[in-house]
Amino acid sequence: MATGKQDLDRLLPIEGVKIAAVQAGVRYANRYDVVVMALSAQCRTAGVFTQNAFCAAPVVLARQYLQSSQGRARYLLINTGNANAGTGQQGMADARNCCQSLAELTGVSADQVLPFSTGVIGERLPAQKIVAALPGAMDALQADNWLMAAKGIMTTDTRPKGLSVSLEHQGQRITVTGITKGAGMIKPNMATMLAFVATDADIAQELLQNLLRTAVEYSFNRITVDGDTSTNDCCMLVASGASGVVIDETDSDLLAQFSDLLNNLMIGLARQIIHDAEGARKFVTVQVNGGADSQECLKVAYAIAESPLVKTALTASDPNWGRILAAIGRAGVADLNVDLIDIYLGDVALVNQGGLAPDYTEAQGQSIMSQENIELRIELGRGQVSETVWTSDLSEEYVRINASYRS
Amino acid sequence: MATGKQDLDRLLPIEGVKIAAVQAGVRYANRYDVVVMALSAQCRTAGVFTQNAFCAAPVVLARQYLQSSQGRARYLLINTGNANAGTGQQGMADARNCCQSLAELTGVSADQVLPFSTGVIGERLPAQKIVAALPGAMDALQADNWLMAAKGIMTTDTRPKGLSVSLEHQGQRITVTGITKGAGMIKPNMATMLAFVATDADIAQELLQNLLRTAVEYSFNRITVDGDTSTNDCCMLVASGASGVVIDETDSDLLAQFSDLLNNLMIGLARQIIHDAEGARKFVTVQVNGGADSQECLKVAYAIAESPLVKTALTASDPNWGRILAAIGRAGVADLNVDLIDIYLGDVALVNQGGLAPDYTEAQGQSIMSQENIELRIELGRGQVSETVWTSDLSEEYVRINASYRS
Repeated sequence: MATGKQDLDRLLPIEGVKIAAVQAGVRYANRYDVVVMALSAQCRTAGVFTQNAFCAAPVVLARQYLQSSQGRARYLLINTGNANAGTGQQGMADARNCCQSLAELTGVSADQVLPFSTGVIGERLPAQKIVAALPGAMDALQADNWLMAAKGIMTTDTRPKGLSVSLEHQGQRITVTGITKGAGMIKPNMATMLAFVATDADIAQELLQNLLRTAVEYSFNRITVDGDTSTNDCCMLVASGASGVVIDETDSDLLAQFSDLLNNLMIGLARQIIHDAEGARKFVTVQVNGGADSQECLKVAYAIAESPLVKTALTASDPNWGRILAAIGRAGVADLNVDLIDIYLGDVALVNQGGLAPDYTEAQGQSIMSQENIELRIELGRGQVSETVWTSDLSEEYVRINASYRS
Repeated sequence: MATGKQDLDRLLPIEGVKIAAVQAGVRYANRYDVVVMALSAQCRTAGVFTQNAFCAAPVVLARQYLQSSQGRARYLLINTGNANAGTGQQGMADARNCCQSLAELTGVSADQVLPFSTGVIGERLPAQKIVAALPGAMDALQADNWLMAAKGIMTTDTRPKGLSVSLEHQGQRITVTGITKGAGMIKPNMATMLAFVATDADIAQELLQNLLRTAVEYSFNRITVDGDTSTNDCCMLVASGASGVVIDETDSDLLAQFSDLLNNLMIGLARQIIHDAEGARKFVTVQVNGGADSQECLKVAYAIAESPLVKTALTASDPNWGRILAAIGRAGVADLNVDLIDIYLGDVALVNQGGLAPDYTEAQGQSIMSQENIELRIELGRGQVSETVWTSDLSEEYVRINASYRS
């Protein structure tokens, strides 16, 4: 199951970035499982990585290489089928080996190849298979291959995920294209998935990193499927500069415009993950308003978004406001005055001042809950801060998938 | 589904406590749904209540009455089928009304009747039906009715839960008997369920409260089914003094003996809840050793015990150590050195120093995971503190139950 539309809009190529997806047989035959993104020498790359204390070998290496090469990555080397996580020193050697091979093949230094892996944890990476597939990948590099790459990085995803946006500035066009993968083991801190985003804007390394951090904070760090943070998550942002448009602090309007564009693209990608959440029947927006600070809004939003009882009620299209109240009540907000709390389901007032709203009818609630897109709005009445989190329901299919897939 | 044995051992009567269970038709016909426990004038009662900010009306009232009557409760009035939660001022009036009626019927003051409700949230309590059932309950009071009471407080429970323990002291016997209910919406903070425990020991109010608090901390506050804390949880401890044995600080040996007895009874009751967890196929003990403090041990234990991915792997009898590692890694322990971590599945070393244990075989892991009782032991290598938490798996049946039951 998944929610939302099936088809991907066209993904626009980014000048300075070429892509190939090939079949290396990492875990399964006849499946595109190795993706190479080749970046021009002008490209600058920023990255944000998982906060999980158990980092997979490629995450450790990509973070290290990004630093030592000062963002001058020339290749992103991505495989699915094997996460190269929990593999110790052997895993580090295998990841290094793959990067080294591609570096030798292309004449760049090893730390200009950043590795990314997703798939089963705890099995040795078949580095040989990946290395063997690299010459074929070099031959297949093309600018217009984003869709293929989006397919090539899928694991339990049921559909490829990507988005392109652009803006005009003084007759010149800037484009941003991104792809992402992820369907389970999804929870912020950061970005519990892989995402690769590129733009043809010209952006210096430090600003690029700041733009990425902000965009991730309000997109991938605002989604949850099951509260489980993976060991392999990375989100990379590449700026090729090929459009000739420079983004920097001298033109703050353009910077703000670009930042909005990037944030919206990231939010769009993050939402696609939730649409494709394992076993999802519902796409749920949890908006918490009236908080004293961001942290308490997020506590309430995640208590709701990760409550198995709220999530199973969502699956059942049951407007079970008692479970929502109970989740808010245990969210750990100090001195919460429950008599100030309102809850809205779409436009319908469900709870008013901590009790059932006087005009609410079960038929109203049912009618909204039976839709695929559900908006829950909580008013805390404590201040002016708002936060929004996106999540899915918890269905029998989620259990079926995760009781059979060895992730 | 449930795990462990089906049958309840005999529950021993406690002199000074009489019990009746009657059919009041609160939600369903032909079901014992109102339980009255009548306490002798010598009884002292202690209580611990839910930490959820949304407290049900009976919780608010029971806490208040327990204080104003200084623990001299004469009746505990329990109903299932309706939690009287999220019912505002009306709910308070309904709860007060029930207590007042029983007080008038029996000639005690209203604050000597403590109300407890469990069941559906957000619907008005049918106080009339409960009041109408009270005279019949008075006629049915008997000392040996604990099993009937255990059945009378069930909601989604598939079996009654109770335990009796006793000890001899200088030729005199002290007995403790307790019953509990709960199967979903189970998570500490405190005691996400109802429990009623009585002893014939003679214990002053303040000590009784302290003994209860300690016992709850290591029993009901160490279990989780789904991380959802309910709005109605209460655990009450009654001491009738009828045995003539005084427990106080003058005989510290006896006090320690009794405290152990009580703690073990409470742990036994808490474990029964986990055995009967909604949809449970597995009874899982998560022991975390080698922590620097209790809090970090509990963070790790709960990250594992509440991870949907670990729980679905348990359902599938899959020794998926990658998911356990990932849960530990996101538990939020500062400066966690993953290279020190060992994981044991029963007696089998699964992870050694952060990587797969060299001698581990999948067959070993599978063989232990296929059992009903599973013990996970995590060694953090940071200090000397240990904590143990009990949990269940996450099965399709859990989703089915909670996608249909309106709790």
